[in-house]
Amino acid sequence: MQRKEISKAVLKRLPGYLSYLKSIPEDAGPYISATGLANALGMGEVQVRKDLAMVSNGGRPKIGYLRESLIEDISQFLGYDNTTTAILVGAGKLGQALLGYTGFAAYGLNILAAFDIQPAAAEVEGKQIYPMEQLETFCRQNKVLMAIITVPVQNAQTVCDRLIRCGIKAVWNFAPTHLDVPKGILVQNENMATSLAVLSMHLQAQIKDKK
Amino acid sequence: MQRKEISKAVLKRLPGYLSYLKSIPEDAGPYISATGLANALGMGEVQVRKDLAMVSNGGRPKIGYLRESLIEDISQFLGYDNTTTAILVGAGKLGQALLGYTGFAAYGLNILAAFDIQPAAAEVEGKQIYPMEQLETFCRQNKVLMAIITVPVQNAQTVCDRLIRCGIKAVWNFAPTHLDVPKGILVQNENMATSLAVLSMHLQAQIKDKK
Repeated sequence: MQRKEISKAVLKRLPGYLSYLKSIPEDAGPYISATGLANALGMGEVQVRKDLAMVSNGGRPKIGYLRESLIEDISQFLGYDNTTTAILVGAGKLGQALLGYTGFAAYGLNILAAFDIQPAAAEVEGKQIYPMEQLETFCRQNKVLMAIITVPVQNAQTVCDRLIRCGIKAVWNFAPTHLDVPKGILVQNENMATSLAVLSMHLQAQIKDKK
Repeated sequence: MQRKEISKAVLKRLPGYLSYLKSIPEDAGPYISATGLANALGMGEVQVRKDLAMVSNGGRPKIGYLRESLIEDISQFLGYDNTTTAILVGAGKLGQALLGYTGFAAYGLNILAAFDIQPAAAEVEGKQIYPMEQLETFCRQNKVLMAIITVPVQNAQTVCDRLIRCGIKAVWNFAPTHLDVPKGILVQNENMATSLAVLSMHLQAQIKDKK
């Protein structure tokens, strides 16, 4: 279908629909209605209807969507069927955990290899860990566009700048710091340390209130 | 020191300072100035100075902060020295990856155990996986206040409601969906599927522009 401009809010809901659609048992019948989806996910029917119309034109009145087609439409829209290849920089604890996480494949993400200033091992879970000197060559040879940053906070900006010079256009940043990037480069922050700080701050306040 | 009200923006920068401070080699001398920190992290000096004043009163003019004390002050402020115990619900791929991630200890997070409707294994990385029936008893016996949700999107709200009835006050939600909670409960969303969707959408647009 013709690609429409989509808001970030819609984009953020699509993985939720997809995750639900994939979980429906085979024997539930081939069709799913927007109402059915809305009820299952505790969402408004109008919103679900609008969201689905953005990514699929397979909906039929009184019948709904063919589930398999809707899964395909959303996956295609999100780019999950084109595998995105990425590299990871910083093979410490978090980096190694992400390298070993097999769930990314379902989202079309394939981490090709990792890089570290001082690789502690040659590989983790079958993924090679190379010294940083090989970053430039590897990126150009493999036409890598996406990088995952899991280096310490004080190295994150330098690493990010270097990745951009290697042709990286999208950065998934797990270092708890802001990264400055030129226009056209997207940084998506995943700040687990910050999330934990916010959560434990809330718990401390709760405990204090009780005293 | 007297606890001050702190903004979420400051809170989000504190883990970055801490991560840097901990990485400074022993032989660098015992003191660090706000200017030194600002330069190392590429931040404004005034902001660093203000942030540190919120959490420590150990700064001395022309000398700076005793590094060890500043680490202690920030850690204490963020609650990293009081270990927060949490449980994890949903021991699928992501759940198991988080259970096995040893880096949380540095942030004072201890995942006691996991729960699943159908545990695929009895334990992962030394952490027990219990059937959901044991959730209530476990939470009350261990006075658990924090839970990590890694269940499929369509079960997330039900699980969240059940956790709140068990006394959970802070939820770290990895399911790509919004959760409704009563006042006083904090939900922190960590949406890796959404982050990936945003990143690959950006890459698709980049590739399309090139064509």
